[in-house]
Amino acid sequence: MQITIDSLRAVAIGCTILGGGGGGDPRIGQMMAEEAIKVLGPVDVHPLEELDPDDLILPCGMIGAPTVMVEKIPNGGEGRAIRDVYEDIYGREFKAVMPFEMGGINGVLPIAWAAHAGLPLVDGDFMGRAFPELQMLTPHLLGMPGSPAVIADERLQTIVFRTRDNLWLEKLVRNAVATYGGSACGGMYPMTAAEARRALIPGTVSLAEQLGRAIRSGADDPLEALSAQIPAFPLAAGKVVDVDRRTAGGFVRGSAVIEGIDQHRNQVFRLEFQNENLVVLRDGEALATVPDIITLLDYHTAHGIVTEGIKYGQRVRIVAFPSPRQWTSPAGIATVGPRAFGYDVDYLGVEDRYG
Amino acid sequence: MQITIDSLRAVAIGCTILGGGGGGDPRIGQMMAEEAIKVLGPVDVHPLEELDPDDLILPCGMIGAPTVMVEKIPNGGEGRAIRDVYEDIYGREFKAVMPFEMGGINGVLPIAWAAHAGLPLVDGDFMGRAFPELQMLTPHLLGMPGSPAVIADERLQTIVFRTRDNLWLEKLVRNAVATYGGSACGGMYPMTAAEARRALIPGTVSLAEQLGRAIRSGADDPLEALSAQIPAFPLAAGKVVDVDRRTAGGFVRGSAVIEGIDQHRNQVFRLEFQNENLVVLRDGEALATVPDIITLLDYHTAHGIVTEGIKYGQRVRIVAFPSPRQWTSPAGIATVGPRAFGYDVDYLGVEDRYG
Repeated sequence: MQITIDSLRAVAIGCTILGGGGGGDPRIGQMMAEEAIKVLGPVDVHPLEELDPDDLILPCGMIGAPTVMVEKIPNGGEGRAIRDVYEDIYGREFKAVMPFEMGGINGVLPIAWAAHAGLPLVDGDFMGRAFPELQMLTPHLLGMPGSPAVIADERLQTIVFRTRDNLWLEKLVRNAVATYGGSACGGMYPMTAAEARRALIPGTVSLAEQLGRAIRSGADDPLEALSAQIPAFPLAAGKVVDVDRRTAGGFVRGSAVIEGIDQHRNQVFRLEFQNENLVVLRDGEALATVPDIITLLDYHTAHGIVTEGIKYGQRVRIVAFPSPRQWTSPAGIATVGPRAFGYDVDYLGVEDRYG
Repeated sequence: MQITIDSLRAVAIGCTILGGGGGGDPRIGQMMAEEAIKVLGPVDVHPLEELDPDDLILPCGMIGAPTVMVEKIPNGGEGRAIRDVYEDIYGREFKAVMPFEMGGINGVLPIAWAAHAGLPLVDGDFMGRAFPELQMLTPHLLGMPGSPAVIADERLQTIVFRTRDNLWLEKLVRNAVATYGGSACGGMYPMTAAEARRALIPGTVSLAEQLGRAIRSGADDPLEALSAQIPAFPLAAGKVVDVDRRTAGGFVRGSAVIEGIDQHRNQVFRLEFQNENLVVLRDGEALATVPDIITLLDYHTAHGIVTEGIKYGQRVRIVAFPSPRQWTSPAGIATVGPRAFGYDVDYLGVEDRYG
């Protein structure tokens, strides 16, 4: 598989679905990747198995509040700066780039970095969606360190973190990103292909492309076209009547209230988010929670709406997609389930609930 | 010159004078250095000229709020951890350790690190006193970078900063130190001996030892004994009647009110500090300001009192010592003069004012 300008556009659309509202609006990352592909040519995408077990992989993306990312635009040189710092530490070169999450800008920005580095992209990631914190990656469940992590801002100032555990990494990186101004580019959980095989959620770049193509297919019912590619559970259709959103401490947090339409008339839904959508409630009862992917789709086009793009009056569908299976183990639920975000409810997957 | 346990004690006392209230209570650093000297033997102190011009120097110490440093005790391995990170970056070993400031704990802790590393200590530092911020070092005046700077906490978690200027370094390191819990060990402005010669304030380790010996000499008037070693300007004698001190953002800030005694009866003095004493006022008029060294001395013993040790009822002398000459240039005053700390007064050195 190769990422051309055409497939890049599909990947970007797919990333708004898989991101669960998070990972940032892909537009800027898409523009940077388009420019890179125009100049440098398509980017090869490889299944991890095609890499040599000893090859070094760079999982990378942006960290911080998506509300800030769209205004504090990357310089373009961050990927290079991060790679230089790592290659200096390891004394050898990376052989592939990988999105650490497959959502929003973070599904497409690594494509720009891969193009600039002349490296292939791994077909997969460490979340299978987007999550807000640095311990919310599959290698963390396997006891693998996020350190050394490297971040760079648009002034190409770099910081290298070596922490004793991934919760300290989250705390220290989050604070530095806030000091940078709210967002930064970063690499973390650097590892060999052999190590990455244990943690990878495979095929997510291809999946994003398929989802994007389904939405763009011009089908009369784009949600139906999407459902042919991924199990989708439509929970409601409605109109956004209130949005509460605040950017603080390197996150955007808030909620949206959605008044039902169609068969959901006279029902009120509440969506709560921390970068990503965490839970959707009706009359105080959870209809779906993390780690299932909860995405607001445009009522007509089925394009995903990122949390910072939710606006009063939008007509939307609230759709849930089953969590990648890596997150539904007890350790996975402890790390990214509803209680990890402060919700006192048990996780019950949408497949078990509605399937 | 060698630092033995006896001379170490003198250096520690001298550091309470030169620190101008800052740099932290030397006791913990002194205990760590004593233990190291007991086990590993005395530490050689060399004038910088005795080192090879190409030798790499490690300027180091603690960063953060002195109020926290005395409770969040170093692990002892931080010096080694910092050295390892740097030597990995440079691919070669340091040849000498240097206190980045000659005040409080930071005048003595590097002695412990030098003992453990089997390295000599440079006789000098980059402040000639203590200052609270990372751009307040003489190499900054010469346009030399504080980067790469390395910090380590007592869990031996390390962070490496490479910033575009030293104000960004201060901002990012300060925030990381606050996230660590309020204090950390660090190295910054790493350079060769040849580079260090341009910036060094020489002889400050020897000076601290001489000041300490003068205070310990058992003279009837220890302040007079001190004055024989360094120009000293006693501004007042009094009793502490109020202390306001808060620890936030990696600093301790506050003020003390001192009611005059002896010939200063019926006068009220106010001392303001940010880690270090910044200005002493009488009826709103500045009697002395940074960069002159303003130190509270115990009324009877002339031992220096650190800002976090000021207590209600203490009988004290407020004494000012002329600033190291490196700070009295226009660039020096812009960096560490009263306006750099928000005081709308001009710097007028105590020698010009009272000499």
